[in-house]
Amino acid sequence: MRVRLGMVGGGQGAFIGAIHRIAARMDGQFDLVAGALSSDPKRARASAADLGIRSYADFAEMAQAEAARPDGIEAVAIVTPNHLHAAPAIAFLNAGIHVICDKPLAATPAEAEAIAAAAASSSARFFLTHNYCALPMVREARARVADGALGQLRLVQAEYLQGWLSEPAPGNKQAEWRTDPARAGAGALGDIGTHAWQLAVFVTGQTPDRISADLSSMVPGRPIDDDARVALRYASGAKGGLWASQVAVGQENGLSLRLFGTKGALEWRLSDSERLIFTPKDGPAQILTRAQDRSASYRTPPGHPEGYLEGFANLYSDVARIIRGDDSLADRVPGLGDGLSGMAFIAAAKASATRDGAWVEVGA
Amino acid sequence: MRVRLGMVGGGQGAFIGAIHRIAARMDGQFDLVAGALSSDPKRARASAADLGIRSYADFAEMAQAEAARPDGIEAVAIVTPNHLHAAPAIAFLNAGIHVICDKPLAATPAEAEAIAAAAASSSARFFLTHNYCALPMVREARARVADGALGQLRLVQAEYLQGWLSEPAPGNKQAEWRTDPARAGAGALGDIGTHAWQLAVFVTGQTPDRISADLSSMVPGRPIDDDARVALRYASGAKGGLWASQVAVGQENGLSLRLFGTKGALEWRLSDSERLIFTPKDGPAQILTRAQDRSASYRTPPGHPEGYLEGFANLYSDVARIIRGDDSLADRVPGLGDGLSGMAFIAAAKASATRDGAWVEVGA
Amino acid sequence: MRVRLGMVGGGQGAFIGAIHRIAARMDGQFDLVAGALSSDPKRARASAADLGIRSYADFAEMAQAEAARPDGIEAVAIVTPNHLHAAPAIAFLNAGIHVICDKPLAATPAEAEAIAAAAASSSARFFLTHNYCALPMVREARARVADGALGQLRLVQAEYLQGWLSEPAPGNKQAEWRTDPARAGAGALGDIGTHAWQLAVFVTGQTPDRISADLSSMVPGRPIDDDARVALRYASGAKGGLWASQVAVGQENGLSLRLFGTKGALEWRLSDSERLIFTPKDGPAQILTRAQDRSASYRTPPGHPEGYLEGFANLYSDVARIIRGDDSLADRVPGLGDGLSGMAFIAAAKASATRDGAWVEVGA
Amino acid sequence: MRVRLGMVGGGQGAFIGAIHRIAARMDGQFDLVAGALSSDPKRARASAADLGIRSYADFAEMAQAEAARPDGIEAVAIVTPNHLHAAPAIAFLNAGIHVICDKPLAATPAEAEAIAAAAASSSARFFLTHNYCALPMVREARARVADGALGQLRLVQAEYLQGWLSEPAPGNKQAEWRTDPARAGAGALGDIGTHAWQLAVFVTGQTPDRISADLSSMVPGRPIDDDARVALRYASGAKGGLWASQVAVGQENGLSLRLFGTKGALEWRLSDSERLIFTPKDGPAQILTRAQDRSASYRTPPGHPEGYLEGFANLYSDVARIIRGDDSLADRVPGLGDGLSGMAFIAAAKASATRDGAWVEVGA
Repeated sequence: MRVRLGMVGGGQGAFIGAIHRIAARMDGQFDLVAGALSSDPKRARASAADLGIRSYADFAEMAQAEAARPDGIEAVAIVTPNHLHAAPAIAFLNAGIHVICDKPLAATPAEAEAIAAAAASSSARFFLTHNYCALPMVREARARVADGALGQLRLVQAEYLQGWLSEPAPGNKQAEWRTDPARAGAGALGDIGTHAWQLAVFVTGQTPDRISADLSSMVPGRPIDDDARVALRYASGAKGGLWASQVAVGQENGLSLRLFGTKGALEWRLSDSERLIFTPKDGPAQILTRAQDRSASYRTPPGHPEGYLEGFANLYSDVARIIRGDDSLADRVPGLGDGLSGMAFIAAAKASATRDGAWVEVGA
Repeated sequence: MRVRLGMVGGGQGAFIGAIHRIAARMDGQFDLVAGALSSDPKRARASAADLGIRSYADFAEMAQAEAARPDGIEAVAIVTPNHLHAAPAIAFLNAGIHVICDKPLAATPAEAEAIAAAAASSSARFFLTHNYCALPMVREARARVADGALGQLRLVQAEYLQGWLSEPAPGNKQAEWRTDPARAGAGALGDIGTHAWQLAVFVTGQTPDRISADLSSMVPGRPIDDDARVALRYASGAKGGLWASQVAVGQENGLSLRLFGTKGALEWRLSDSERLIFTPKDGPAQILTRAQDRSASYRTPPGHPEGYLEGFANLYSDVARIIRGDDSLADRVPGLGDGLSGMAFIAAAKASATRDGAWVEVGA
Repeated sequence: MRVRLGMVGGGQGAFIGAIHRIAARMDGQFDLVAGALSSDPKRARASAADLGIRSYADFAEMAQAEAARPDGIEAVAIVTPNHLHAAPAIAFLNAGIHVICDKPLAATPAEAEAIAAAAASSSARFFLTHNYCALPMVREARARVADGALGQLRLVQAEYLQGWLSEPAPGNKQAEWRTDPARAGAGALGDIGTHAWQLAVFVTGQTPDRISADLSSMVPGRPIDDDARVALRYASGAKGGLWASQVAVGQENGLSLRLFGTKGALEWRLSDSERLIFTPKDGPAQILTRAQDRSASYRTPPGHPEGYLEGFANLYSDVARIIRGDDSLADRVPGLGDGLSGMAFIAAAKASATRDGAWVEVGA
Repeated sequence: MRVRLGMVGGGQGAFIGAIHRIAARMDGQFDLVAGALSSDPKRARASAADLGIRSYADFAEMAQAEAARPDGIEAVAIVTPNHLHAAPAIAFLNAGIHVICDKPLAATPAEAEAIAAAAASSSARFFLTHNYCALPMVREARARVADGALGQLRLVQAEYLQGWLSEPAPGNKQAEWRTDPARAGAGALGDIGTHAWQLAVFVTGQTPDRISADLSSMVPGRPIDDDARVALRYASGAKGGLWASQVAVGQENGLSLRLFGTKGALEWRLSDSERLIFTPKDGPAQILTRAQDRSASYRTPPGHPEGYLEGFANLYSDVARIIRGDDSLADRVPGLGDGLSGMAFIAAAKASATRDGAWVEVGA
């Protein structure tokens, strides 16, 4: 039986809301039935009408009403700007409705803690859509590391490079809130840096314990970071680097992860997302494809490219199965821990940058 | 309003039926409401129950019943093996229901002609899911050729290489009917050669007028071709080659198209489907991405990979809009003409191969 | 002790002569000491003076004089246009001087036979500089095929694509003689098609026994082929294709070889010449580099790219060692057999093309 | 007339000496005539005999004797381990003989200063073989930056990754001195980090003014750095990263440079050294090849790969022409300035690493 889904945000013209809807639809495991799709009541109504779903002017009202209906939503997708994650997340968690929240977790540490507190006292679950970690070759990368294919991990390099903010972008709604400190909390660091961070943590199974950061606003007058360079140190002795930039001209979505251990290396790039390069210490590099993947996170045979939407859909489908009781998948679906880790990363990076790159403990 | 869709074939365990359903779901433009999902009545019923749709034991009954309902299906997807395309296609066309048929058109020329006759006398439309031509960079390639970016076309090379049939595959249901002359009509030639043919015709806007073919059964005892090499001659003086193989070990879905004209060249590969290489005669090669695409056939920004399913969904979404009255898209959605061209290609290739590669006119 | 080398052709402004000289110099195994560098006596003298070597106005005189000197040349490089290979080759072979001849062997079958006769009755050896087969990853490819890594060979695809002759090139000295039937003998077929042919024969260890060819002159008015498409059939049942073109706009030197057998596949491209992709039937593709090469045909560690000149130098260095008595290398250095095979390929392709692509036996 | 060349170091079994000899030979502009090829007199003699050159037991004696001969060497190549650069360099500079020195300049700042002092008071010139900057596409990259193709430079990322020292390598002569602080001065930082540094400085035309470094010895017990991560800040406001590692398993010679400016981006990788990717801000990426190069630093047409040895030979040929009086090339041949810059980089990185990554001025 399909999971009944609601949505907060994602009205007409929104970007990430449409992505979540496709992801929810793809494998036929959800029915979108209700939404508070916009803070503008008229736009909220029109958007809901387009989709043929129940419309609410307000997420709080929606949480209450849906919880009360026998056929009310079982889960809600929160696809608002970062500073508007906490309030609805808490409302639905308090109403016992599962939350699927876009990343990063929140705009401020205080909001993040409030979400964590609500989750702790709720019977409902909290999921965070770090979508890249649901791609099959990323899941295979993680499995290889866990299997010991790299031996002891030594070097980590994670990058997420974009060029779309290399100039001021007045009138671009996406650019506007993402470069507004009040709504976004952080710039490149939060928007894409947290993806790179989560990817590295997810695949390696290790979280850096100290970082040193250099944050820049390369575009004159921009009030938020658009380039973030972070050095990483792990308790194990491994070292790494994380580079997130939105002024890397010509880069569309240059997300990549490179790992080197005592016994082998792994390299994955979003621009070639269906391949994973594994190089054992004493042999040739191998081009792994879904033919070598063991996560079965796909719908088509190897060589028929799947991509961004399918990764998102992998998360949604796992969430549906978890909601229906299959807890075996919980381990690979990002959740509150990932969200708090991302917030700790942002906070530590900002603290380090303020102190000219001093090493700062993560999560301290 | 969503298009009400039915399906023939595609019951539990089927491959291409599931793909069609995802494609129909992806953009929220269809509701699958009825199906004759299997020739095995029990499996048909169980499959329909899984999907929560009306079930029919028989496509003929379904065509009649659905045509009679006020809320009956408006379109039907036919996803049966090749030799079972004609009968249902004709039944639904006769019932005034639009047909979305998997490729190739049929297993025999006679079946193809019967479909053509039914289409000619029906008010309903006929679509053929040559999905690759709906990928954005393929559409952009076609637009470039039409714009004259290549000048006069001289050389064409189309390939579709797979390795999955490099050995006998007893017990593999997909392999079984695809290597059975009675059900498939042709082997590599029909299954993937027609994709390469349609791709080349679609992008170049030209159909070869004579071909010379060498068909092989590389796996001992296989009663159908598993490797097809076809030389192409165009009325314009251009020449080309088409190579389809299912015994190319290690190749997953090695579909590619290379074009060379007097003024420039284009190269596209499914393994890197989001990029199109354009080389003007006197300048460096350019790596085109969706940032340069003009067909707007996608859902996500450039650099977020879309793939096979999105291509399929592009077709479905165009079909929905055509059915709802937007004829401007009809030109880019494959239909009966593509199906008949593919059948003519198969027939000419077989005739040439029988005569040791003599040049044979296509469609004569 | 270095081998004393002479040269016929290769005067000021010549292309391939300069390449041969670098190749001879690279590993310090030759001293160039004499030359008949041009048919224009003045240019011959000036060119020799530049190089500080003995100058001859005439190759016949040179052969005689050098054979008579105690410190005369031991080997001669012949780097003239194709129709001027036979006469000097025969003169030096008759004088007991080893010949290193540029490819193809000759402009006509009659010339080729005359060379073969001279070689048969000479104490000196004959080498042909099909340079690509001396690249380390090509040698490794050959070793893998010989080891059985591909199992039984089924499919062969060889290509050599260039774009530099996509237009008439008046005043270009290289283009002039290469498109003159009298001096070149064949166009794309001879100039680069023979490279692709030799590469395929060298790596697979098999020579096609029948071929079917389509030769074109895509540039209006060109008196020689500039595009050659050849279908290949092997006695073993393997099939293949060879495509050589000089009108493939944007292609610099697109030489490639793809092989598929029952147990694995190999792919090599000159544009990425230091890598060889090997795909076993049941595992991921492997990116082989010189770290996996067993021929030791290089001077630098893997990852420091070597290329065209080093390949040429590999041939020269092997020739020097063969001349000094190490016959173990003779097997991997192309010679008269390769030259005659190339001539048989040209002749059969022309015969087939004349008969509209009829299958013609090679070498019959 | 060829330049008479001597060599210090590079006896039998040496690696880089053989490379220098090939480079000097390739374009026929040098005659190697004398050497002090080893500190072991017997090996020195035997090595010289192999090469047929004058042998000296001692570089000091050689400098004196050669300076006194009318046919004495005009230039000397110094290819000893780092700590043995200064003494011979000074001796030959004092003797008025041009010096071609392998990189890095020296093992200690004191040695570097002594060389600089000797160069300042000598009539002879000093060249440093940072070979990668002589590759044609690197020279073209530099020309593009100088032309303003990138606009204002914002981001720099330079990497040189190797894996060959990922384990202790007892008995490997190359590994031995390169991991010995006394002989090498620095590990990955000096051996390959200086290459990456020089490459970035050469192409961008800018030197970072402050750096922050993290140096590691990943292999337990190794007394020298084998992984160096350096953050870069430029006076212009640009920022960057430099990563040099010798424990990056599977990497052969992973040298790369990525630059992003306000108007465009450039990317070059040694693993694909004949291509340079240029992406203008508002258009598709372009794959530049030697067809677009303006430095004319090659011997063969585009598409015939040249590589490491040809880059080295480019330096040698430029040096020969400079020695013969063509000063127009001096700007593109690395020299003392590059050497001192590299030493300043090493010193600043060590100072920063000692202070846990504090920002340190370069060259202060």
